[in-house]
Amino acid sequence: MKKPLILISNDDSIHAGGIKALVEVAKEIGEVIVVAPAAPQSAQSHAITISAPLRLKKSDVFEGVEAYTVNGTPVDCIKLANYVVLKDRKPDIVLSGINHGSNASINILYSGTMAAAMEGSLENINSIGFSLLDYSLSANFEPCKPFVKTIIEQVLEHGIEHSSLLNVNIPNLPTDEIKGIRICRQAVGLWKESFVEKEDPFGKPYYWLTGEFLMEDDGEDSDMHALNEGYISVVPSMHDLTAYKTIEWMRGNISWK
Amino acid sequence: MKKPLILISNDDSIHAGGIKALVEVAKEIGEVIVVAPAAPQSAQSHAITISAPLRLKKSDVFEGVEAYTVNGTPVDCIKLANYVVLKDRKPDIVLSGINHGSNASINILYSGTMAAAMEGSLENINSIGFSLLDYSLSANFEPCKPFVKTIIEQVLEHGIEHSSLLNVNIPNLPTDEIKGIRICRQAVGLWKESFVEKEDPFGKPYYWLTGEFLMEDDGEDSDMHALNEGYISVVPSMHDLTAYKTIEWMRGNISWK
Repeated sequence: MKKPLILISNDDSIHAGGIKALVEVAKEIGEVIVVAPAAPQSAQSHAITISAPLRLKKSDVFEGVEAYTVNGTPVDCIKLANYVVLKDRKPDIVLSGINHGSNASINILYSGTMAAAMEGSLENINSIGFSLLDYSLSANFEPCKPFVKTIIEQVLEHGIEHSSLLNVNIPNLPTDEIKGIRICRQAVGLWKESFVEKEDPFGKPYYWLTGEFLMEDDGEDSDMHALNEGYISVVPSMHDLTAYKTIEWMRGNISWK
Repeated sequence: MKKPLILISNDDSIHAGGIKALVEVAKEIGEVIVVAPAAPQSAQSHAITISAPLRLKKSDVFEGVEAYTVNGTPVDCIKLANYVVLKDRKPDIVLSGINHGSNASINILYSGTMAAAMEGSLENINSIGFSLLDYSLSANFEPCKPFVKTIIEQVLEHGIEHSSLLNVNIPNLPTDEIKGIRICRQAVGLWKESFVEKEDPFGKPYYWLTGEFLMEDDGEDSDMHALNEGYISVVPSMHDLTAYKTIEWMRGNISWK
């Protein structure tokens, strides 16, 4: 059987521990190609670089794996990978991460890791974004590796019906304390921001964004609930943002005269 | 009756013609506060600035309107507006745009204009992103003003059920050639990229992103179809990206053993 072609990116840069772990797992499954940001790109969401040129550089960060860095965003990486590096070859799967920190709930909207996966899914390639609930640079990705491998293998074998994107979040626990994998919906939540206001050396004020994530959802089928209980959450996601229920309501209730 | 409080941002910067037109329309309806990027932020999507301080500067660009610039992304602007400028006041509506260029179909994912509106909707404020199908800096926003006003007024009067976000795209036509307003779903489409490859003065290659939008949708209920027929498209949108159909399928078809 031909080995699957696996395209990998992330948003924490090619030098992060999370992408190293993901490459190690993927190498056991298929042929791996990495195209990842040269520098960290957290919270870049689905940003793309249109007002500056992009550089694509060969990297020997991963032994025995074809790898490149890009001086751009995660979405830039996937676009360059598909249209320049791979050209006529199409990946069997796009993997992004493993992110240092959660992308559960609405964090999918801010996340560069999930945007890279979504860009794969926009190209009709099954795509998975992985995130570990540990923001530290020295996060330990070893315990989650067996689960990451299982999820990739299942998607390669069965595909993803009615969607082509999974948002996978992993509790920061030893392997034998991870209770299993749950299919979930995205929890309702909100970042309650508080800006730190300070003065620069010239007496002028500046603001630094900080915030606290508020859960506004007590449903037992949400990703946040699964994670809190020690399960890995898998949220099948999509890029059609249409609120279909609202279409019906608007047609019945709004007049444009 | 108390005048509604209207928060306005965009991604083309406070100096763009589109936001000027939107402010002019909004001033006729309510009290307007503008917090917009100091410099263009197109294609910034839902990016936020976390690794640098933000500056908030008073601006007198709009006569008689309280306005500020931010050295960050559209989403930064909405966060600073809500948590620093307005603090305990909550806008009755968030408006973003009018964007110079289309945000129909999947362009909602890349758009800074739509991300600003979505950030408003994440704060449970009804929010509308407006875009005119003319990318030029000198685009003429006069013809669409009556329609923009009607849409804002309708949302202020009726709200938006089951959602809090509208993606409004406007054909680049004279007022009397715009056929009306249609409630639509987001069209399925794809950016087929082609990177221009060149050499810098030092002989090193670089890539510049360019692309062509491909429609992959012949449904008559899509935003692209409405626009092609000369209608304004209104797509009610949401920030729950869960693919619910896939949840059912995965539970029945995937085993994690």
